[in-house]
Amino acid sequence: MTKEQEFLAYLKEISLLQEAVGLSEWDSQTGMPEKGATYRAEMSSYLSGMAFEKSTNQTMKDYLTYFEANQDELSDFGKQVFAKTKENFDLNNNIPVDRFQAFSKLTSNAHSIWVNAREAKDYAIYKETLEEIIKMTKEFIPLWKKSEATNYDVLLNQYEPGMTTAILDDVFKQVKDGIMAIRAEIEEKGTTPRTDFVSYNVPIENQREFVSTVIERIGYDFSKGRLDDTVHPFMLNLNRNDARITTRWAENDFTMATLGTIHEAGHGMYEQHVDAKYDYTPLAGGTSMGIHESQSLFNEIIVGGSKAFWSKQYPLLQSLTGDTFKGIDNDTFYKGLKETKPSLVRIESDSLTYPLHIIIRYEIEKMIFNDEIDVADLPKIWNDKYEEYLGIRPENDLEGILQDVHWAGGSFGYFPSYALGYMYAAQLHHAMNKVMDVEEILASDDYSAIREWLTENIHQYGSSRKPNQLIMDATGESLNPQYLIDYMKDLYFDVYQVR
Amino acid sequence: MTKEQEFLAYLKEISLLQEAVGLSEWDSQTGMPEKGATYRAEMSSYLSGMAFEKSTNQTMKDYLTYFEANQDELSDFGKQVFAKTKENFDLNNNIPVDRFQAFSKLTSNAHSIWVNAREAKDYAIYKETLEEIIKMTKEFIPLWKKSEATNYDVLLNQYEPGMTTAILDDVFKQVKDGIMAIRAEIEEKGTTPRTDFVSYNVPIENQREFVSTVIERIGYDFSKGRLDDTVHPFMLNLNRNDARITTRWAENDFTMATLGTIHEAGHGMYEQHVDAKYDYTPLAGGTSMGIHESQSLFNEIIVGGSKAFWSKQYPLLQSLTGDTFKGIDNDTFYKGLKETKPSLVRIESDSLTYPLHIIIRYEIEKMIFNDEIDVADLPKIWNDKYEEYLGIRPENDLEGILQDVHWAGGSFGYFPSYALGYMYAAQLHHAMNKVMDVEEILASDDYSAIREWLTENIHQYGSSRKPNQLIMDATGESLNPQYLIDYMKDLYFDVYQVR
Repeated sequence: MTKEQEFLAYLKEISLLQEAVGLSEWDSQTGMPEKGATYRAEMSSYLSGMAFEKSTNQTMKDYLTYFEANQDELSDFGKQVFAKTKENFDLNNNIPVDRFQAFSKLTSNAHSIWVNAREAKDYAIYKETLEEIIKMTKEFIPLWKKSEATNYDVLLNQYEPGMTTAILDDVFKQVKDGIMAIRAEIEEKGTTPRTDFVSYNVPIENQREFVSTVIERIGYDFSKGRLDDTVHPFMLNLNRNDARITTRWAENDFTMATLGTIHEAGHGMYEQHVDAKYDYTPLAGGTSMGIHESQSLFNEIIVGGSKAFWSKQYPLLQSLTGDTFKGIDNDTFYKGLKETKPSLVRIESDSLTYPLHIIIRYEIEKMIFNDEIDVADLPKIWNDKYEEYLGIRPENDLEGILQDVHWAGGSFGYFPSYALGYMYAAQLHHAMNKVMDVEEILASDDYSAIREWLTENIHQYGSSRKPNQLIMDATGESLNPQYLIDYMKDLYFDVYQVR
Repeated sequence: MTKEQEFLAYLKEISLLQEAVGLSEWDSQTGMPEKGATYRAEMSSYLSGMAFEKSTNQTMKDYLTYFEANQDELSDFGKQVFAKTKENFDLNNNIPVDRFQAFSKLTSNAHSIWVNAREAKDYAIYKETLEEIIKMTKEFIPLWKKSEATNYDVLLNQYEPGMTTAILDDVFKQVKDGIMAIRAEIEEKGTTPRTDFVSYNVPIENQREFVSTVIERIGYDFSKGRLDDTVHPFMLNLNRNDARITTRWAENDFTMATLGTIHEAGHGMYEQHVDAKYDYTPLAGGTSMGIHESQSLFNEIIVGGSKAFWSKQYPLLQSLTGDTFKGIDNDTFYKGLKETKPSLVRIESDSLTYPLHIIIRYEIEKMIFNDEIDVADLPKIWNDKYEEYLGIRPENDLEGILQDVHWAGGSFGYFPSYALGYMYAAQLHHAMNKVMDVEEILASDDYSAIREWLTENIHQYGSSRKPNQLIMDATGESLNPQYLIDYMKDLYFDVYQVR
């Protein structure tokens, strides 16, 4: 065995342990018996502790030191793996162990405090904890910092390598202005679509059959995945041949499970098509939150927002539901799916207003880490921004500042990934349209060309390329928000018959 | 930490790894995506390898040596744990590693050779492999041997500690004579029950609802378990709060899933009620194959063979199936379930003839390990015994000698456990009847007294007591096959209206 092979074998052990933790997590969310929870926590924490130990112990340090000094002993592939391993190591290891543990404990407690605050709809209960989390994050930032310009850039980079506030300030301004302009025009000249049928009763078993067929048509491979029910939908990949998705169902809103599952299937399709050569290395799996969201949102927004697509899928829904949708024609059905209406809650929002929710969070996070605000003032700042951008104001903290779990978990800089995913998806769609007519394909019985283009340009690379490089190579330019704005304008002006 | 606490913490690690392997196994049998199999094999073998390594490495040897010499440092509980750990260690460790690996490889290949032989219905394909397995097993027996009288006793003891051929020869003779006598009397004077309704179509969803309700009534706790579908039904306990069962369904034979699930629920109920103090030690979990089968067969044969029980459960089946069973009254229904008819295949046999299948295997295994027969003659010996005991003769090796997987896996001495389970179940039933009227309880709406008696006398002890001690304590005497014979006589003479 060469030293590189030894190193790869060591990384494989870590990967196998993480896979076991993943299975344990999936099981505990999909159907573990209720009373198994405390036992399960023991098992999960033992396995994840072992994975963490192997990722940070002296053996790992020795490998990193050795290859740092002897890069010439590494193959090109080995160099890529080494670089990513080093990157992950630095992220974990620059924090002293006792501070890391204190932070884990803090965020673990924060979760239940956040839950309590939500129940009481009272930010005051949560404020001090949030302050603590922010304080510790600020303590860590200098330890993480490499060449980033601002403190918040350090956080952004943990989720979207290469992303900066300099880029985002500019991009989000364009997106915000674009959306506000579209909304104003719709408000003034638009015709609101009929939407009553969205809440028609569709038995869950019919929804399940429908959506399973639809995601298979889009390219989700059930021989490498499965669909289960959970309260919070997710995709979890154990390996490239086992990328599982979940959804939740509502009898009186078939769109929730339908679009939710199409979304998760996009995450799953990404993982199912990463090149097998990255197996058991840190290069297996998607490269960033933003790119991952670009794949789920390509499915949900581009495919699931296509008129041609629904003209093919709606008949299946009709055939499964008897007379339920009688009298609702293709056009009415499609337009109803794409209604836009400002909402206070991010996860309930439509595809036009969604980026505004993200921009609000981005602006607030930036202020927090630039020390421009007092954490006590957050609810007011939050509510003011909702009023300004969306024209509605939360009546309590539950529908305002307390709605997201992210901050309680110490995740700052994560939210922008969602909006990046939107913009990437639209930009990829634009590039794809140069080599094929996407709408024509979505009107056909064979969608494979779309999935293959995404595999060719995004999926296959796993984490071996950074987001900006992937987007540059796939589309010929760096992030350009204009494609999203153009896409939304075309779509919503059509739906609202503005032109 | 005391040395004992250290030892227990070390055993806990092994237990947690085994739990992860268990979950992986459960998942791969219940719903892992098809293409995930090769990746899964890597994960399972890594985790089980680690568990095996920890069970046999120098650290373990040091603990065992230390406590062997310093028993006074162990608490009473620690002594029990130590003894069981030592017992398990000796079983694994007296075989040289290279021979153990060779045996694993042999049995792993044997499985596919056995499958091929089954497809060709030709024992000749399998003969040499079986000879090899027997040869290696004979090589290992002296290494396993402690104080057992015969070679076959060594094998028996691996599944049922304390069991001997001296006991079984006697017991099985009584059982065989008893069953043959019952069968002769039924043949001569009995009235065969009506059974056509057993193959009435019952949709699987109705069966699922029915059987889930029934096993919950019997005492299977769904907050500590779940029911899934597999080709080969099993119970798998991750821990006492997570003992999962599976079943298979046939639309045209509701008895298969019904009795199969009641059987597996018995295994699950055992694990769900082991005392929590044995958690994460080798004393958690059932004590032997025979005692485990006594619990599953108590459910299947005693409860599932009770007229009072069916008088309570049959109305539920009727209410779920519309007019399907119209005109079939309680008595007809019950008697149809208990038809006896000789079959060539063990797993398709009824509760009267089942022990004969086991006795045939026992007699053959004994001959093999006493060097009394040539392996080439096995099919003829097998077929002759079926003709003698059951009055029917296999037409090919598939319905004869090739029907069971056990020998291909190197499991000799395992079969008797099934028959021991029958006898234990009947003996426990007899003892239970001294303190309550079991049939009266089964005619009521509350079966908890039965489950509680089994927990009190069997379940709670986990592996901390040997089978013979459990049976002695619970029933006041050692294994006595007369209870099974009496039970069968009463039941089948009633069903066949002999008296």
